[in-house]
Amino acid sequence: MGVLELDYSQYQTVYNVLSFALASMLATFIFLLVVQGRVLPRYRQALVVSAMVCLIAAYHYYRIFDSFRHNYVAIDEGAAATAFNAIQYQLVNGEGFNEGYRYVDWLLTVPLLLFETIAVLALPRAIRKNLLMKLIPASALMIILGYPGEIAVDAAPKAIWGALSTIPFLYILYVLWVELSKSMNTQPEQVRKDLNGLRLLLLATWGVYPISYMIPMIWQDAGADTFVWRQVGYSIADVLAKCLFGLLIYKIAREKSANDSREFVDQEIDAAPSSK
Amino acid sequence: MGVLELDYSQYQTVYNVLSFALASMLATFIFLLVVQGRVLPRYRQALVVSAMVCLIAAYHYYRIFDSFRHNYVAIDEGAAATAFNAIQYQLVNGEGFNEGYRYVDWLLTVPLLLFETIAVLALPRAIRKNLLMKLIPASALMIILGYPGEIAVDAAPKAIWGALSTIPFLYILYVLWVELSKSMNTQPEQVRKDLNGLRLLLLATWGVYPISYMIPMIWQDAGADTFVWRQVGYSIADVLAKCLFGLLIYKIAREKSANDSREFVDQEIDAAPSSK
Repeated sequence: MGVLELDYSQYQTVYNVLSFALASMLATFIFLLVVQGRVLPRYRQALVVSAMVCLIAAYHYYRIFDSFRHNYVAIDEGAAATAFNAIQYQLVNGEGFNEGYRYVDWLLTVPLLLFETIAVLALPRAIRKNLLMKLIPASALMIILGYPGEIAVDAAPKAIWGALSTIPFLYILYVLWVELSKSMNTQPEQVRKDLNGLRLLLLATWGVYPISYMIPMIWQDAGADTFVWRQVGYSIADVLAKCLFGLLIYKIAREKSANDSREFVDQEIDAAPSSK
Repeated sequence: MGVLELDYSQYQTVYNVLSFALASMLATFIFLLVVQGRVLPRYRQALVVSAMVCLIAAYHYYRIFDSFRHNYVAIDEGAAATAFNAIQYQLVNGEGFNEGYRYVDWLLTVPLLLFETIAVLALPRAIRKNLLMKLIPASALMIILGYPGEIAVDAAPKAIWGALSTIPFLYILYVLWVELSKSMNTQPEQVRKDLNGLRLLLLATWGVYPISYMIPMIWQDAGADTFVWRQVGYSIADVLAKCLFGLLIYKIAREKSANDSREFVDQEIDAAPSSK
């Protein structure tokens, strides 16, 4: 739940990384909305959901940024007026810096991320439904089981809840790699490659979360550095898992649109459609 | 990192130039979104990305403006109440005026600017991909290498990081002038001329950044003036490199649309399309 004191560069690092995440979420949200017309209608659902993921995340980053800014105040130490690097920031006794926003965010966005992944593939209805009925409850369970460990102070409950949360995570990986792969043979070559990129991005970025989660466990002397690196880790993972992931969904939707319709290719891609 | 004291006209200059940049970014962002329909679908991607660049910059100028406003406060010196020109502004001990926003902004927008430059040309996929794979990592590297020099207080590290950052910058110029030129012979005459304008604008405006960066080095007695001129330099360069650049992208997209489609010319340009 934050630490008591941060020095100048630690404060600046957290401050700027939170602002970076907010700017990225905001821009990707608008981008995914305004490029609707750049894909065939059947793929727009996936884009809208990706945009909503970024909107929800932008809202939460605004809250996290605000919470950070208002709960850490500079301590005036006289000398500070002439040397900024000497300023210390102290956590005030108020609401405290709220880490809960992240979990509320993930509880909403992680199921939606899995939904958009399945939606963009435009699989037959029965297969799609079957996959979503497995992925969505598992992802919610994963977040819910992680939260008690996040707020726990001791290493033991952190490890237990972390381990419990890993079970649905492994199940999600099983569904995405084994079950989903069975439905992929009808997809065009390029889409299969992109889906693979999507799954690897998901694995790589979701892998950052448990690392950030475990930082206070492995780096036992706690202190401000573990707090700073956890914030940096979570923020960068969020940008990759939401913004970059959303842009990859858009890329897949473009490729599938081009694959589905010659007219789409003429209008959207080829420079000289009327040359014929 | 800001300086300790600004006089009335220095404070007003920074305040107004930041507000000017914010207004320009916001208006260009909206403009580029609403003119989507004025170009053929295949050029809209470039316009959307240009709009996102201005949105991201608008967000950061809002933050920079806010940071400036809240971190410099007027010192009441009695006489000040009757003579505005006598008011001094002092940097309070708070978050400090945050220069980091500029670098976060550039890290996001500079790669996007290069993306939109290539996107608007609608080059064959392989060439486009090849150019982007060179330009985008180089631009990110350029920004990342510049940051340690920006926050350094001494001239020596400033010069070293500045020199390192210049290497990817020169590489970008090489790719844009030498490699890109090879792909330009299929482009219409007017587009070739506009691309040249685009590249020169890029060179001229990006040239302002190193000058602003070096101001504290060359103008050794530091003080408030170097701070003010750095803010003015960066802000004007940003407006030229993002707003004016975005408008030039729009101009190229219009010309290429007219070149691609007779119907577009009839609808969008000719005064009497139904004369036939």
